[in-house]
This record gives sequence, structure tokens and C-alpha cells, in this order.
Amino acid sequence: MEDTAAVFGAWPGDAEVAVALTFDVDGEAAWLAEGPEYGQRLTLLSQARFGPGRGLGRILDLLAELDIPGTFYVPGHTADHHPEAVAAIVAAGHEVGHHGYLHRGTDGLDAGSQRAELEEGLAALGRHGIRPAGYRSPGWELSPDTLAMLAGLGFSYDSSLMADDRPYWQASGTAPLLELPGHWSLCDWPYFGWTPYHGGLLADSAAVERIWLEEYESARQDHRAITYTMHPEAIGRGYLLRMLRRVITGMLSRGRPWFATHAQIAALANPPATPTARPAATGAGRSRTEEPR
Amino acid sequence: MEDTAAVFGAWPGDAEVAVALTFDVDGEAAWLAEGPEYGQRLTLLSQARFGPGRGLGRILDLLAELDIPGTFYVPGHTADHHPEAVAAIVAAGHEVGHHGYLHRGTDGLDAGSQRAELEEGLAALGRHGIRPAGYRSPGWELSPDTLAMLAGLGFSYDSSLMADDRPYWQASGTAPLLELPGHWSLCDWPYFGWTPYHGGLLADSAAVERIWLEEYESARQDHRAITYTMHPEAIGRGYLLRMLRRVITGMLSRGRPWFATHAQIAALANPPATPTARPAATGAGRSRTEEPR
Amino acid sequence: MEDTAAVFGAWPGDAEVAVALTFDVDGEAAWLAEGPEYGQRLTLLSQARFGPGRGLGRILDLLAELDIPGTFYVPGHTADHHPEAVAAIVAAGHEVGHHGYLHRGTDGLDAGSQRAELEEGLAALGRHGIRPAGYRSPGWELSPDTLAMLAGLGFSYDSSLMADDRPYWQASGTAPLLELPGHWSLCDWPYFGWTPYHGGLLADSAAVERIWLEEYESARQDHRAITYTMHPEAIGRGYLLRMLRRVITGMLSRGRPWFATHAQIAALANPPATPTARPAATGAGRSRTEEPR
Amino acid sequence: MEDTAAVFGAWPGDAEVAVALTFDVDGEAAWLAEGPEYGQRLTLLSQARFGPGRGLGRILDLLAELDIPGTFYVPGHTADHHPEAVAAIVAAGHEVGHHGYLHRGTDGLDAGSQRAELEEGLAALGRHGIRPAGYRSPGWELSPDTLAMLAGLGFSYDSSLMADDRPYWQASGTAPLLELPGHWSLCDWPYFGWTPYHGGLLADSAAVERIWLEEYESARQDHRAITYTMHPEAIGRGYLLRMLRRVITGMLSRGRPWFATHAQIAALANPPATPTARPAATGAGRSRTEEPR
Repeated sequence: MEDTAAVFGAWPGDAEVAVALTFDVDGEAAWLAEGPEYGQRLTLLSQARFGPGRGLGRILDLLAELDIPGTFYVPGHTADHHPEAVAAIVAAGHEVGHHGYLHRGTDGLDAGSQRAELEEGLAALGRHGIRPAGYRSPGWELSPDTLAMLAGLGFSYDSSLMADDRPYWQASGTAPLLELPGHWSLCDWPYFGWTPYHGGLLADSAAVERIWLEEYESARQDHRAITYTMHPEAIGRGYLLRMLRRVITGMLSRGRPWFATHAQIAALANPPATPTARPAATGAGRSRTEEPR
Repeated sequence: MEDTAAVFGAWPGDAEVAVALTFDVDGEAAWLAEGPEYGQRLTLLSQARFGPGRGLGRILDLLAELDIPGTFYVPGHTADHHPEAVAAIVAAGHEVGHHGYLHRGTDGLDAGSQRAELEEGLAALGRHGIRPAGYRSPGWELSPDTLAMLAGLGFSYDSSLMADDRPYWQASGTAPLLELPGHWSLCDWPYFGWTPYHGGLLADSAAVERIWLEEYESARQDHRAITYTMHPEAIGRGYLLRMLRRVITGMLSRGRPWFATHAQIAALANPPATPTARPAATGAGRSRTEEPR
Repeated sequence: MEDTAAVFGAWPGDAEVAVALTFDVDGEAAWLAEGPEYGQRLTLLSQARFGPGRGLGRILDLLAELDIPGTFYVPGHTADHHPEAVAAIVAAGHEVGHHGYLHRGTDGLDAGSQRAELEEGLAALGRHGIRPAGYRSPGWELSPDTLAMLAGLGFSYDSSLMADDRPYWQASGTAPLLELPGHWSLCDWPYFGWTPYHGGLLADSAAVERIWLEEYESARQDHRAITYTMHPEAIGRGYLLRMLRRVITGMLSRGRPWFATHAQIAALANPPATPTARPAATGAGRSRTEEPR
Repeated sequence: MEDTAAVFGAWPGDAEVAVALTFDVDGEAAWLAEGPEYGQRLTLLSQARFGPGRGLGRILDLLAELDIPGTFYVPGHTADHHPEAVAAIVAAGHEVGHHGYLHRGTDGLDAGSQRAELEEGLAALGRHGIRPAGYRSPGWELSPDTLAMLAGLGFSYDSSLMADDRPYWQASGTAPLLELPGHWSLCDWPYFGWTPYHGGLLADSAAVERIWLEEYESARQDHRAITYTMHPEAIGRGYLLRMLRRVITGMLSRGRPWFATHAQIAALANPPATPTARPAATGAGRSRTEEPR
């Protein structure tokens, strides 16, 4: 077991592992961002709409039944066009994080457009009375510009980077930002998403169940925090919701997890050892960020 | 269990779940629609011809043996070039639905060409004495233009959209249209289709068997209707027909399914609560369709 | 069980099913045909060379041990550059078929180049004293031009088309040609091939073992002939050769297979019911080939 | 069992099989080589940084616990930017091999740039006091130019080619070079790598565990050497490290493996039977390399 004392002490209630179930409620935003021709693709858009329209409700029901809090990263566009989805998340006491406005990949935008995505997303969530403390980049690609803006816009943690599988401090401009890393192998979309032209894997859900529990075992052994990333459009399908239930009950039967929101985990982080973490890697010659052990 | 009373009351015979086995008899149409160079690809065309020529017969035999009705979506081109296939489907008492003429994706056509695909498909089925009540868009991509035309052309239900996994009312022009949704995870093509250049997944059929039965269990718990979508070219292969048999017998052993055609299910739908359903989503700012509970 | 009497009577020795194990010994030809830049890719070429250099020997050893004959489709280029491979196949008493010269896809060549591929392939095999009776198109794509030439060049059967999963008569020009169909799901390459840039599936060999045996069970039930298609470069890897052994022993333990070459199977075919089979499908309006029951 | 006496006699300690666990510590080099736009993709770069930053430590811990030596192929860029990673590898007594400088594919470079990649990689490792005896081409694509340079630069073995699954002699210029072949099916990246835009397979780790042990059984039966190729960024994930542990313990429980570095294996090779091996295959008309039995 590695020592995570540099960022975290013991988890609450003598838990062996902190588990964050997070959900990106993308709705139609990700597709509309691809181009105007997607307005002609009602099937694809309806597939996306399944997320806030049906999948989300199933997730909320499961979390309520098991009394587990979740973190929902919501693009501003989803908040504007599916207000009842955001209301239901908030009413159930879950956390809402920032996920861009139209789910535009930050690496394809200039600095001004990146700022606009951040500000419009904040405004849209603000119309629901939400001031998010956390950010996750759409499509899991974070640019140096957006990273540098986050702390200045009031975010205290991010869930976009993957340099470690335990939380670490990352510089955002001159301020420290807590990184709560996810990973593609712990995300439902690469396994279960399928769309015309782009295809997908349509993986064996029994295999993913094993993989997710294996990673849980690894995290439990390390006493680290672990983030699972899901999409109501995918995990909200009937057969996958049943898998998610088995994953959660499997965790409960194998140890003492602390199911927590990203905000709850971030609240326990010790401050970085140095006044500010070093700048993020941006090419050859870059220095390393401060990675706690 | 969610309440589906808004669209459906109890299923016939105290069934727990309504199961629609549907088959898209694409034949060569889908490939010929891709371009004239496909006329040089006899292997690919023969692979497609396996559907009406061999796979279909296996499916009809299995359905007859188990006394289960099916819904067959047939492109006009298939009806014109494989008349014996359509005759066999009709003779066995199954339902025939509309699936375009040359299986052209509606999102790549202008409104006039979309109308032509619909009318030529109707004409081809009409030459067999068939007046289809249901429509499924080729390649599962539905454009706003085609959707708006469907009710006016006499269709009472559609199986092209995926905003929910239970039937819902959808506006077609100013008239209501019942949506009987399918999904890629419940379709054989993404799992088992394989063609040169495009590839495929060639999935483990044992895994798909589990997935399809898991989704059945979810539908059974919800007392909802569920649609499986298959292609004689794929599911008609020997090893997959054996899987389909196990899926069906597995359903029978796990509960009380009502195997029904799309027309039989649609006939039981309560009318929409509002005079006409609201327009379909077609981009930013769109309102939501009426989704029954 | 369907009646296959139109093409075949009973199999020898009261066998339930005729099983053809076929191997495409592509060597480097398929890659060199892609373009001159492939001459710079020694790793890819060495991966291809593994086929005749190592995998083939393993296959021949297994077939010898189990006393099973195989059919080896060999591009002329392989025959010219790996003469010892062809010699070993012939010495073991297996059949050699035609597989183009440089493994060029017939659908990308004009009629003259298609003829050249056929003639150069015949010449290369002829230098080994081989006059092939069967043809399989490189990359499993057959054009109308090549199909029309086959009978005139002395071929009596082909293994390029997939309109059925049992042998059928197909017109080649004005002469009948026996089609011995394979399928991608019964080929090792889509499952196990992997190359840079193009990728692959690297499938679970245990799943493929089940799939191939399931299809065998289907063929056994139908009393039909079944063709498996493999590549020494793929199936000749250590872990896959072990899978192939289990597939074969599984067949032996589950019924009474007749392992035969394509030539042995073709020799038992009843002549077509009509003087010549009808022309192959080549686009809209084409008639169907004569498919025996 | 085939005779490997031509290259190797008996393995040390009466071992049945020589097993080389090799790791390519690519870090960010492979992505930065793709183009300057990758400097904007902090998530992808952080995913890469996980390799030297977290995955490597897990691997070193496992090897130390099981007392197994490994071979680490390190691009010069990784050595320059993650010096502590190289120091940790060396301190643990493992071998370091050459893996280019910026992980540029040799087949896309002119001869001068290929030489520069080799020399800059040597210089970077030299700054750590390392003089590598072995080379593996970045991205597993080796060009004739680079192959011809290797012996002259002092390399005595290479691990880039795949013409056999046991070591063989290969000409490099006029000198012999021992080839220690790997294969994509024995590499973690095709199974487990996943990146935006390029995707991946995200395979079932239980299936890969079976495949890798099956190949081990084949190698054990042949008494041959076998090379596994892994990447700290992939195999270093928690769930995969657990799989690797099971693979290794499975090997130990099934036979008598000799876990060895590439250098240790190469030191046992008998010299080639001929003064120099013949030139590598580089297109039509090429002769075959000397492949020992």
C-alpha cells in the first residue's frame, strides 16, 4: 500500500477506499457541437436525449435506493434545455460540476472561445442557482489555456487529467488546483457507446463488471480515491444499470468503500506542500507537476 | 417498476413484457446505395444476398416452430428483387414494415429524394399487396423531413428513434406517431456484421446472449415493451440462429413474455394525452417530445 | 435438417458434415500489393513472413498428426518466394489452390490486370507442377470480370462468394462453377489479425473456439459442407494453433465429420440441374443464381 | 517440440522456457512526435505521463517482490525528461534498451533522420551512463536503413521483427544481429490502449490473461524464448498490474520458466552458422534471412 498522506489522511469512517461515481449528462450538446449537419440526425440526437430523459432517472433511483451521492458534470446546454434534469439532480442532493457549455473540446478552440465556454457554462448553471466547484473538460481533453483559467474562475478541483490514479495537485495559473483523475478504462463510453459512422466496442458487460471491480480492489489495496465516469445515455440502458448495481453491491461486499462526491473528497485534501504547484506539462522541456506519494 | 399506463395498460394474457422480434431484410439495397463501385464487389453483394436467400428461411422456420410472430422491415428494392422472400414472410402471417426503397440514409438526402424513397418503397410493397403501417429508417438515421412526412403517408408508428426504451408519442407534422424504439445494443449488426474496409466487431455470441437477456430482465421488471432488431444476413448465420433460439427460450423460461408484432403492440396504445404530440427535437432550443410514463 | 441432395448426396463414411480446413498462404504478397512504401516496413513484412516461415510448419504438423487433409490457397508471389513452403504442402499430400499472384483485390483492377493476376498465378504454381482446380479471390472480393474468366481458365470451383453457407452452382461465363462458400465469421484474420494503422480485434480465442464449434453444430445438423479459412500468419501463432487443435478435437468428439479438401468435396457434387447456372448478380435488376436446396 | 539448438542450447537451471518481460517506457515522446498540436492535449499527455510517473513504480515493485529482471526500452526523450524513472530502473538492476529518441517511426523518416534518432537516443542514455546492447524500433516498424545501421552502432540484438516466434539471426549491414521477436498479440497496447480519436479495444483482461498463458504453454512445449511487451502507461493501471501478477504466478505454477532480460538471453546465443546472416527482406525478389530451427 502506498502512502497517500501527502494529499489525504484517513478516509471517513475507517473506509478503505473513496469511490466517486460521476456522470456526464451530455445530452445533445456533444453532437450539436460537431456541426450543423447533426441537426438532421434525429436518431442520434434522440439517442443522446435518452440520457437526461430516461437514463438519468434510473441512475437517480439507484443512488437513492443505495443512499449513495453522485457527482454530475453538466454542460450548460443540457442545463438550458433539460432544466428538469438538473432540478432532479439537485433535489436529490447530488453535486453538479461544470462540463463546458456546448461540450466543445478545449483543444480545438482558441483561448477566447475556451473562456466563453467556461463563462457560458457557469452562467447556465448559475440560472439554476448552482456555483460549481469542480470542472471536467468535454471529451476529456484539456488545453493549457483552459487549465490556466480554472482557478481564476473559482474552481477548486478538476477531473480532466490522468497523470496519476490518485488525486494530485496541479497548477492552474499561479494557484493550486486539486486533480481528481479518471481514466478511459473506468468510463462507460468507450466500452458501451455506439454511433453510426464512428462505431464503438459494445463490450461484454460482464467483462467490464470484472474490470471495474478489479480496479476497485487495486484502489482498496492502495487506500486511494477512485473515480468512475459514466453517461446516462450509456449506463442508463437497462442492462447496464443492472451491471452498475452489481458493481456497487460487489464493492460493498468486498470491503469498506466511502462513496463520496468529488466535492466531499476535495474537502479532505491537505493543501499542497509548496505554495503553488508547478505548471502543467506542455511539451518538450516541461517540468513535472508535483505528484504526491 | 415504472408506470407505463399513459401509453399502455396491461399486456395481453397477463404478460410481464411485450417482446418484438424485428428483422430488416436489407438484401443488396444497402450496398448498392453506397455507389456504383459496389456493383464490382460480388462477394460483398453475395454476403448481403445470404439474408433473403438463406438466413430468412432459417428465421421463418424458427418463428414457426416456436409460434412467434415477427415484424420484417423490407426495403422496396428487396421486395422487387427477392419477391419470394416477401411472399414467404406474408404467407407465414408476419408483419411487413417500410424500410425505404434503396436503403438510403435519410440524413443524406434532400426532401424530395426522401419523399421519393418513401413513395417508391410504398409502391414496391404495394405490388405485393402490402400497405405497411410502420416505418423504420434505413441505417437508423431519421431526418426531420422524413419524420414530418410519415403520418401524412399513412404510417401510424415508427421504429427509428431512441429517446426512450419504451414506446412514446412523437409528432409527425401535426399528427401523432407512435414511436417503438430500438437501440444499437439490441441490434445484431454492430455486434456481428463484418465487411472489408469497414470491419466490425465479430462479438462473442455468448456475451450478446447475456446482454440481450439482461435487457429483457430489465424490460420485464419495468413491464415495458422491448424491440430487438436483426438482419437475416447476420442473425441467419448458423451459429447466431442457435444463439437467437437460446435467447428466446431463455426469455420463456424466465418470465411471461408476450411476443408480438409492432402492429399488435401499436394497436394497444392509448392515444396521446394531448391532441398532438409536440414537434421533434431538431437542434438547440427545441422542446421535448411528450414522453409517457 | 435441410435437403442438400440437389448438390450433394450422402457424405463418405456416413459422415454428418463435410469440413474443409483451408489456409491462405499470403506471405508478403498482400502487403507488397498495397504500395512501394511497404518495402520500408520490415516489421510488417516479417509478420507476414511468419506465415510460410513458421506458422505453416505448425499447421502441417498438426494436420499430419491428426491425419487431416487441408486446402492451401497460395498467391503466385508466395510460390515464387517461398518455394519450400509450397513443396512442403505438396509433399504432405494437401491441395493447392489459386489465390492471385500479388494478392491484388480484383475489384480494384481493370479486366486486363485481373487476367494477368490469374495467368501469372497459374504460371507460378505451374513452376511447381501444380494445376489448381480451385480459386479464392484475394481479400475475399470477387469482381464480375474475374468470375467470368474462371471457368475458361480451367477452374471447376471457387471459394470467394457467400450467398449461401452450403455449396451452390454459380455461372462463370457460360459454364457452371461450383461455389464453396466461406464467411468472415469462420476466418481467423478478422478475429486475430492486427497491424499498425489498421488495427484489428485481437479477439478472445476462447470465444472464437465456441463460435467455430457452434457453426459446426449448425452444419452438422444441416448435413452441409462447411469451410474454415485461416492464415498461417495468424492461426500459426502458438496460442491459436492450440485453439485450432481444440476446435478439431471438439468436432471429432461431437459427431462424425468428414475432413476433406475442397477438391474432394467438389468431386462429389451433382451437376447443376440446368445446363448452365444463371449469371451472377451484378447490380440492380440482376437475376438470382441457382441456389440448390 | 522443435529443436532450438541452432541458436540456443539448454536454458539455465533446466528451465523449460525463457521468458522476457519487456517494457517500453514511452512517456510523452510518442505523442509529441505526432505533431505540435499534441502540446495542446494535456489529458493525452498526462495519460502518457502516468507511465513513468505511476505505472513504472508498480512494475518495479512487482518485479522486486517476485525477484524477476526486466528489460526496459527507453526513448531518449523519456530519459531526458524523466531521469528519476531511468535511475529507478537502473538501481533495481534491470536492463535498459534503446527505443529511439522521440519515438519516431523509422518508416516515416529519411536515412539521416533515422541516424539522428539512433544517435540522440544513445546520447540521452549515455548521460545516464547506459550503453544499450539492444534496440527496439518505436511503434514496432523497422526500416531497412535503421536495420542496416544497428550493428555498426554497437547493438548486438534487436527486438523489432516478427518473422519467427523464437530468436533468429538477422543481418545488419554485414554483421549478424540477434533478433528477439515480440508480437502484437503479446503486447499490452493493442489490447488496453485507448485514446480519443484513435480509440482502442479495451479488452477483457481475463481473456488476455488466458491468451498470454496459452502462448506461454506453447513456448514451454517448444522450449523456446518468449518476449512479452508492455507499457507502464497501460499495464501499470491497477487492474492490469493485478492481471500481470496472475500471469506471472500462473507461469510459475505451470512449469519451470527462466525469467531473463534480453541481454541475458542474447548472451547464451550460439553464433550464426554462416559468417553473416543474409540481408533482410525488402520487397519482391528478396531472399530469406537465416532462420534457425
